Amino acid sequence: MREVAIIGIGQTPVGEHWEKSLRELAGEAIVAAMQDANRERVDGLFIGNMLSGMVNHQENLGSLIADWVGLQGIEAFKVEAACGSGAAALRVAIMAVASGEMESAIALGVEKMTDNKGTDTTAALATAADADYEAAMGLSFVAINALIMQRYMFEFGWKHDDFAPFSINAHANAQHNPYARLHETIDATDYQQVRMVADPINLLDASPIGDGAAAVLLIPAPHVHTNGKGWPAITIAGSAISTDTLAVHDRHDPLWLSAASRSARIAYAQAGIGPNEIDLFELHDAFSIMSALSLEACGFAERGQGPRLALNGDITLTGRIPVTTLGGLKARGHPVGATGIYQIAEVVQQLRGEAGKAQLGKARIGMAQNIGGSGATAITHILKVK
Amino acid sequence: MREVAIIGIGQTPVGEHWEKSLRELAGEAIVAAMQDANRERVDGLFIGNMLSGMVNHQENLGSLIADWVGLQGIEAFKVEAACGSGAAALRVAIMAVASGEMESAIALGVEKMTDNKGTDTTAALATAADADYEAAMGLSFVAINALIMQRYMFEFGWKHDDFAPFSINAHANAQHNPYARLHETIDATDYQQVRMVADPINLLDASPIGDGAAAVLLIPAPHVHTNGKGWPAITIAGSAISTDTLAVHDRHDPLWLSAASRSARIAYAQAGIGPNEIDLFELHDAFSIMSALSLEACGFAERGQGPRLALNGDITLTGRIPVTTLGGLKARGHPVGATGIYQIAEVVQQLRGEAGKAQLGKARIGMAQNIGGSGATAITHILKVK
Repeated sequence: MREVAIIGIGQTPVGEHWEKSLRELAGEAIVAAMQDANRERVDGLFIGNMLSGMVNHQENLGSLIADWVGLQGIEAFKVEAACGSGAAALRVAIMAVASGEMESAIALGVEKMTDNKGTDTTAALATAADADYEAAMGLSFVAINALIMQRYMFEFGWKHDDFAPFSINAHANAQHNPYARLHETIDATDYQQVRMVADPINLLDASPIGDGAAAVLLIPAPHVHTNGKGWPAITIAGSAISTDTLAVHDRHDPLWLSAASRSARIAYAQAGIGPNEIDLFELHDAFSIMSALSLEACGFAERGQGPRLALNGDITLTGRIPVTTLGGLKARGHPVGATGIYQIAEVVQQLRGEAGKAQLGKARIGMAQNIGGSGATAITHILKVK
Repeated sequence: MREVAIIGIGQTPVGEHWEKSLRELAGEAIVAAMQDANRERVDGLFIGNMLSGMVNHQENLGSLIADWVGLQGIEAFKVEAACGSGAAALRVAIMAVASGEMESAIALGVEKMTDNKGTDTTAALATAADADYEAAMGLSFVAINALIMQRYMFEFGWKHDDFAPFSINAHANAQHNPYARLHETIDATDYQQVRMVADPINLLDASPIGDGAAAVLLIPAPHVHTNGKGWPAITIAGSAISTDTLAVHDRHDPLWLSAASRSARIAYAQAGIGPNEIDLFELHDAFSIMSALSLEACGFAERGQGPRLALNGDITLTGRIPVTTLGGLKARGHPVGATGIYQIAEVVQQLRGEAGKAQLGKARIGMAQNIGGSGATAITHILKVK
């Protein structure tokens, strides 16, 4: 297998893009990534998307988008793993280039959720859970996460307020990210006073949906030449997917993300490192409880102790393990099938030193973890400066 | 890249499986493929499916199905390319094994369409076309194909009856296939008298939908040992995807399947052969006009002359280029996202000499072509006896 490098990234702002169709959002991100990489052609296009059939009444995104951006004829198709679709598409792009099957590929994540043509978005998102044994019982996706958070607080003795620093940090970091949906900072009082969504998850525990697209352009690492832009080559040091049961009640331990843990362990082994060597971690903070569980699953905190890292300030830009450095799902926004590629683009920004006011002092190795369902499918990538 | 071999296949009958859920159908095909390969474990599961979100209210099929069949923890996700989803999933499985990323993988195709929970199946299938410029104008998927067939007949001077042999051949070949949906033979009179769906496409020009699942198990070809079953190792000699515009009206020539042609040319080059060396061709006969266009695109007939092959008897089991040898989409049935894997399983049956009364005299090299949309995404695979 050849080592693979990322030489271009592109993003649209996350928001309510009433004036742009799904293909237009996708096109903006792809063109930006190609310009960033100074390329006019790629061999393959792999598209992470969850909801296009249900919400946009459009499948077959491969030919739709390849044609729209002037790449007619290339290999292209959609990859779906619920909210983990973006990183799953990246995984296909990596395998396509690493195998020698092609010399360049774009992994795109795209989702247009706010113009929903009458579809119930909450019902569409519930398709990430078990239709027969969770959704059919009336559980929405936020309700499932609320049950997990409730049990976690009971089991480990945390108060709701203890989760506040996850959201405060995410909002603070998004302030200067032009692609983030939310730019307002919040404080502990805001966190306490905001309205409840599904007890104990309130509005500031939950990430906002949105429309958006992000793209990264991959080539074999040996083909990376001096790019003249002053930033270093970024290579994929680890890439792994693992799965857990889809329904949370089927798990031996509903408070442990076994797929997240397993995919991280595989990625660490591929990269030849451990959690101590990770300089930043773009985790999947769809809900604040997920931040705690991901930090534990990936070896940054003991089981049940995720909130301690947040309370200690370890997760901030100057902390031991910065997370959601450009806003995370919570404040950059969560256009579900696109999120996994936004995470990768943000890690690349940090590793290049292009993260602006959110730039970390040290950023040589970054990790991103994208999750589909309530921990059901977890995809971990480790990127490093070559 | 390592050469990849297929060592196991599994299929459920195509039909209306009111008593079985999507995961149960998937499980049957996977277990059958694993038993056929005499394996109890694989490293990856790649799932071709188009409609699960819209029709079954279920996405995230990777963890759902991996868990259901006792493969919890493995890498698994869904791949979507409309009716080409099955072969696109196979393509990912091939790249995963060829790249060295894993030592074994299953490519599954699964679709449960008949128990549609109130969803309009025709509308769901129309998501394979351009939502903004075709479906929004009231075009259903059959209507788009009817326009193509109408123009084809006008341009090249064919009568509707000239397409009858495609359907008659498919029904004849399905007779003894236990997995086929339809087992009745038809004749020219039946073809003339059946009711119209969208002029000139009548009921016997159109393939029936259905529920079904098919799976193939892949390993690196160098790992194939004598299997004790008397059949030879089957290797992937060619694998390619190409795309065209999604909307048919955007094409320079709406009567030429450029993606089918390009993907076939790439696959021929990979295999080092041409159309004359293909012993059977499992083509994508969603509508009889598609049979003609595929034969032309892949080099078996001159442009506009596809029906001539059928009228000459060249496409039958004893003809020059047998097609739809176990019934094709027309009579085996078309559970859309599963179809591409049924095609591959059928080619394997022929190459192994396990096609029963439909067995070809000579079957050393077989081709399958799966198409998503009206020629928008085309995936060609060439399999051969090692």
